[in-house]
Amino acid sequence: MKFRSLLAFSILSFGFSSLVAADEFTTKQIEQVKQVREAALESDLSWQLLSSLTTEVGPRLPGTENDKKAVAWAQDKFKKLGFDKVWIEEATFPEWRRYHESAKIILPSEQPLHLTALGNSVSTPKDGLTGEIVLFETLDELIAAPANSLKGKIAFINYRMNRHVDGNGYGPAVRARNSGAVEAAKKGAIAYMMRSVSTSHHRFAHTGGSHYKEGVTKIPSTAVANPDADQLARLVDAGHKVKVALNIQTEDLGQGTSYNVIGEFTGTQFPEQYVLIGGHLDSWDLGTGALDDGAGVALTMAAAKHIADVKRPKRSIRVVLFAAEELGLWGAKAYFEKHKNDLGNIVAAAESDFGADVVYGFESRVNAASLPAVREIAKQLAPLNVTYIGKNSANGGPDLIPLKNATSAPQLAPLNVTYIGKNSANGGPDLIPLKNATSAPIFALHQDGTDYFDYHHTADDTLDKVDPAKLKQNTAAYAVFALMAADAKTKLSGK
Amino acid sequence: MKFRSLLAFSILSFGFSSLVAADEFTTKQIEQVKQVREAALESDLSWQLLSSLTTEVGPRLPGTENDKKAVAWAQDKFKKLGFDKVWIEEATFPEWRRYHESAKIILPSEQPLHLTALGNSVSTPKDGLTGEIVLFETLDELIAAPANSLKGKIAFINYRMNRHVDGNGYGPAVRARNSGAVEAAKKGAIAYMMRSVSTSHHRFAHTGGSHYKEGVTKIPSTAVANPDADQLARLVDAGHKVKVALNIQTEDLGQGTSYNVIGEFTGTQFPEQYVLIGGHLDSWDLGTGALDDGAGVALTMAAAKHIADVKRPKRSIRVVLFAAEELGLWGAKAYFEKHKNDLGNIVAAAESDFGADVVYGFESRVNAASLPAVREIAKQLAPLNVTYIGKNSANGGPDLIPLKNATSAPQLAPLNVTYIGKNSANGGPDLIPLKNATSAPIFALHQDGTDYFDYHHTADDTLDKVDPAKLKQNTAAYAVFALMAADAKTKLSGK
Repeated sequence: MKFRSLLAFSILSFGFSSLVAADEFTTKQIEQVKQVREAALESDLSWQLLSSLTTEVGPRLPGTENDKKAVAWAQDKFKKLGFDKVWIEEATFPEWRRYHESAKIILPSEQPLHLTALGNSVSTPKDGLTGEIVLFETLDELIAAPANSLKGKIAFINYRMNRHVDGNGYGPAVRARNSGAVEAAKKGAIAYMMRSVSTSHHRFAHTGGSHYKEGVTKIPSTAVANPDADQLARLVDAGHKVKVALNIQTEDLGQGTSYNVIGEFTGTQFPEQYVLIGGHLDSWDLGTGALDDGAGVALTMAAAKHIADVKRPKRSIRVVLFAAEELGLWGAKAYFEKHKNDLGNIVAAAESDFGADVVYGFESRVNAASLPAVREIAKQLAPLNVTYIGKNSANGGPDLIPLKNATSAPQLAPLNVTYIGKNSANGGPDLIPLKNATSAPIFALHQDGTDYFDYHHTADDTLDKVDPAKLKQNTAAYAVFALMAADAKTKLSGK
Repeated sequence: MKFRSLLAFSILSFGFSSLVAADEFTTKQIEQVKQVREAALESDLSWQLLSSLTTEVGPRLPGTENDKKAVAWAQDKFKKLGFDKVWIEEATFPEWRRYHESAKIILPSEQPLHLTALGNSVSTPKDGLTGEIVLFETLDELIAAPANSLKGKIAFINYRMNRHVDGNGYGPAVRARNSGAVEAAKKGAIAYMMRSVSTSHHRFAHTGGSHYKEGVTKIPSTAVANPDADQLARLVDAGHKVKVALNIQTEDLGQGTSYNVIGEFTGTQFPEQYVLIGGHLDSWDLGTGALDDGAGVALTMAAAKHIADVKRPKRSIRVVLFAAEELGLWGAKAYFEKHKNDLGNIVAAAESDFGADVVYGFESRVNAASLPAVREIAKQLAPLNVTYIGKNSANGGPDLIPLKNATSAPQLAPLNVTYIGKNSANGGPDLIPLKNATSAPIFALHQDGTDYFDYHHTADDTLDKVDPAKLKQNTAAYAVFALMAADAKTKLSGK
């Protein structure tokens, strides 16, 4: 592992680092950080938690029996790990179930299609439906289609998602998932089918949230696996009339209830102030939610435990396992609404919800007064091969969006905070002065997302897709970050 | 492509090669071989055929409508490619259909299982069955279980197949597929489940032939995807009682009929003598049979066409697309039975049925008199990066097993024919003299099978798994081999 050799480097340069760090952290504190980092790199605790959650509970669609089991699982694990406080907080959400899905090409020859209903999709008639597909390359092409041109037909958008380390292909591709069914229905389509929002070349269809619009007929909304999308496109290209049969049975169960599960190690000096780390406890129903987001759950629980094994920092470490993220951030909305009057107690917040590949970058969104401490954190992440990314405008994971929204200061111009390379421990370049702001201090520990969308929201998101060594590196990065943010001399604050 | 740079080498050394080849092949003949090889490397004909078969016909389970479409497709393509003779020959087989399959873990928590019925499996009761699984690591461990110890339970064998370039992990793993259900039933099991005979780490269950035994209760016989097998094993290891619900609906349709489809370019000098190349036209129903064995079909059809574009050789080139291979070599059995009195007309036989990764080795099973010609063929394969493998005991593909059986001479001791490296054009080492025999002259063009069992017999065996450049190299190798075997001065014969 690359980060192991860098660890050796860090140990050698430690003596010097600790001198520079004197203002925010004592030599003893830095020694404790090192101890926590090494423990996290050695321990298989996060793997054991992830294996247990994804194996013994499995898929965790909000509102299901398994979701309830996951809530019980998390409370039990928090308690067994010795968290000082463990509690749950209610969250409601629109409950939805998938009961059956099958599809096949019936013309020009019969062939099974690997297809899944998008979240929130209505059912087909009980015996299914059949229709000719009309292929569009993009959502915009569908929107531009003449009125009524899809009457009795199935709209099919074949937009291909790009692979990228930061997952930037997801946003453009998700547009067709969010509103494709609405646009198709407007043109008279009886069903909507899209190429999966996925970079996989295997036959796994990608599910995910989709939406209807008041006043527009709700039609079944589905995605086919990428090889199946290719097959449909080749048949269309070859000039065939392509007819498909589709049967999906789902149910809208109205308002459901689940719980954010929270575990906290209490701070010694400012117990009301806390570092918030976590992931979301729910998952889609197709896989076992290992990358999305069992990993985030397991590694933040383990990170807090590794810290507590060494010390209770000045401020609390709170692990929040959000409910019903997949159906629309419902747990996060409930959490930040409930805590809206004391968000100022959050000294740092970061959610892990992008799989379990290596953390390569560390990004902050803090005010100027917090930057010296952030630079010290970055130095202690460097041995893990995590580079500080100077933009200082972090988005700390989907469940933190309500937090960002609730607390953002007026939009600032992009800040050209100078990049701090991993060799900058000898003294980094000057930093451009930053304005103070009142928003939350949000951090991102950026994971390599190159392969994430091969598995995300598919049946193939299972434990074996997680590399134990990379999970350890993630755990160590969160442990270092959370300990230092909780233990800094200066209370970190946002901008 | 590595073989392209070697092609350049070959062109440089061509002048010398042709002198050495004078006995078996004239300079003009070698020039024609080169022309065919280059045409095959440039052409996308095999890709077009493969794309058409797997897209426009799709899965081709023997006896289905798609199987009939494939038979029509093959005759049509042979005719359009200008084969001199195109005909079909009947083959019968035990017809079987898969209608439905679903499975889930119900204890300790509900989780879908990715499972498939093995070929020939009986159905569960209409509403399925449930049972606790009992895990065995190997078939032998199941066989050793006490009598009646599986009463009311589901036997689960978790044997892991090894990955290897020559696919040698398949045989040991297939034992549990062939007879697992029989052994499980003997102990009282109500169903049989096995880890897939597959190297894949994705959630695709592997189907394939399975068998029952007279006098032993027929129980449903199934395989789960490897991540699902891991999940079951982890649950068992964690001490849980693991209960599974299973519903498969299949049908034994009695004797079915299909057709070997045959296309031939007629030889100019010895038209009754022929080189037999081909693949099998049928496939399992889960994928589209791209690697197994659309590739073999497409590349041998294209190879023959590339030869015919340059010349008609002395002997005929016959492409045989065998029927119902997956259900037990039924087309092959019919072919070699029908032609049993003139098998001596086969001057060379090789089937492509191992995917479409690069051909790396060339192996023969010929008598001593044929070896000079074989060495010349090997020289013309070398520019494609195909190495001659000196064992001279080739097994030319599953559909040739009946041919081998029908014509084998008494078992000979392994022959230490010296390895001819790709630089041996300057004159290879002496060859150990070989005895004459009457068996068929069988050749193998060995493909790299490292990844083959990631896809074989699964839903994921689709066109996108074939690399177009590698398919061209395969086509060129078959074209060179077939042309030279058909055009050699000496009639090749077996041993």
